This record gives sequence, structure tokens and C-alpha cells, in this order.
Amino acid sequence: MLTNVEHIGIAVRDIAASNEIFAKLLNVQPYKAETVASEGVNTSFFTVNQTKIELLEATNPDSPIAKFLEKKGEGIHHIAFEVEDILAEMDRLRTEGFTVLNEVPKHGADNKLVCFLHPKGTNGVLIELCQEIKE
Amino acid sequence: MLTNVEHIGIAVRDIAASNEIFAKLLNVQPYKAETVASEGVNTSFFTVNQTKIELLEATNPDSPIAKFLEKKGEGIHHIAFEVEDILAEMDRLRTEGFTVLNEVPKHGADNKLVCFLHPKGTNGVLIELCQEIKE
Repeated sequence: MLTNVEHIGIAVRDIAASNEIFAKLLNVQPYKAETVASEGVNTSFFTVNQTKIELLEATNPDSPIAKFLEKKGEGIHHIAFEVEDILAEMDRLRTEGFTVLNEVPKHGADNKLVCFLHPKGTNGVLIELCQEIKE
Repeated sequence: MLTNVEHIGIAVRDIAASNEIFAKLLNVQPYKAETVASEGVNTSFFTVNQTKIELLEATNPDSPIAKFLEKKGEGIHHIAFEVEDILAEMDRLRTEGFTVLNEVPKHGADNKLVCFLHPKGTNGVLIELCQEIKE
């Protein structure tokens, strides 16, 4: 089950400038900044009730975010849904005909195991499944 | 205050086909279908915890959704944040330098008063404020 909209990812060119914009918009400061080297992104997170807003800036030209910005410009990049059992959910969704972009969950920002679905199967929407890593 | 991600709007070409896709993805049926004639859209809504997923299909070629599809293709169209007092929030955001796209709140789908912010001020993200209309 997809139990919650865990976060919405937004691709930006300059995360420092965008932190100021979103702090004004949401009337709250980001609670965390984190670099995910494997994905080539700097991130920052804001909380709005049970959903986070994640800003994403590319750290290099090969980053998926750099490619997204080049193709589509700044804007909403993905929706991430919380799941309790990511392997079970990946199985369920494959059976339903969706295509997973990574066959094995990988480590994402904010202490999560994540898996992306191919947007061709979801009306152009990049969907992330994420499961909190428990210590 | 923006108190919750009330819904995420997704522009689609064929809402009947997309209802099936999102019902599989979210493992839940849409709880409502509604046409908003003034906006030129057919909508359907799914619930995931405290956030809704709204699918949007154009009803005519002049619909903002038809223009979005032509320019960008299918995908995430907007993020809607719940507010308790839309007029106060519009004032606050204007003071912070954001541009509202409608100076007076208008009637949106799902029994809401709504106001959109110009995406040029929010890193390309179309933001909707929405306040529940109480009887």
C-alpha cells in the first residue's frame, strides 16, 4: 500500500535561492540539507504537515536533475509515496504492469530505501516509493 | 499558513484510462468525479492519507489543461496547499513578493475557494491555495 505522500521533489537551479523562496511560501525554514553523492544532488527539506517538500539541485552535469532541468526547466520532478514494505510493493506494482527503474531498492535522501517507477506507465509522472530505514 | 498538501493535480489526456492506472497504482478507486465547466476540466479524485491525487482532463481546446498538455505533455500540473483563511494568505504572499493569478478567490473542484500563484515566482511550480467552503 502507498500509505502517504511522503514528499514532493522539485528540481531547482540554485538551491540557496530556492530555499529562500520556499521558506517565504511555506512560512517555515528547511529542517535539513543533505547531499546524495550517488544521485548527484543537493537536497533540502521542508515540512508541511505529513508531507515534505524536497528541493533538488544538481551537483554535476550527469545528474538526473541536470538532465531534467535541461529538458524541462525548473519544476515538480517527482511524487514520493511512503510504503511499509518496499519489496512487497515493487512486486505488487510489477504484477500490475508498472515498470520499476531500479530492480533493487537503493539508498535515497532522508534515510530511505527508494524505488522509482517508469513515468511512461504513469501518465508522465515520476513516482518514487520510499520506505524508512529503521535502525 | 499553508497547513497541508491538500492535493496534487496531474494533467492527463484520457481520464477514463488514467483512472484505471491510478487505481492500480494507489490500490484504491477514485471517490469522486466532477466537471468544473468554468475551468474546462473533468476531474477525478483519489485519497492517500491526508492528500488527494486529482486527475485533470481538458473538456475543450481552450482549457488551461489542453494548453499544458500541448506544451509539456502529461504529468504533474500543480500542488495545492490547504489554507484556513485564503484572503489572509493571499495578502501575506503578495507582501512576500509572490504574484497571485486571480485577485479574487474562485470556485474550484471539490468544494473549495482557490487561488493560484504565478509559477515564475516559485521555480516553475504552479501553486494553488485552497480553502474548504463551509456551509
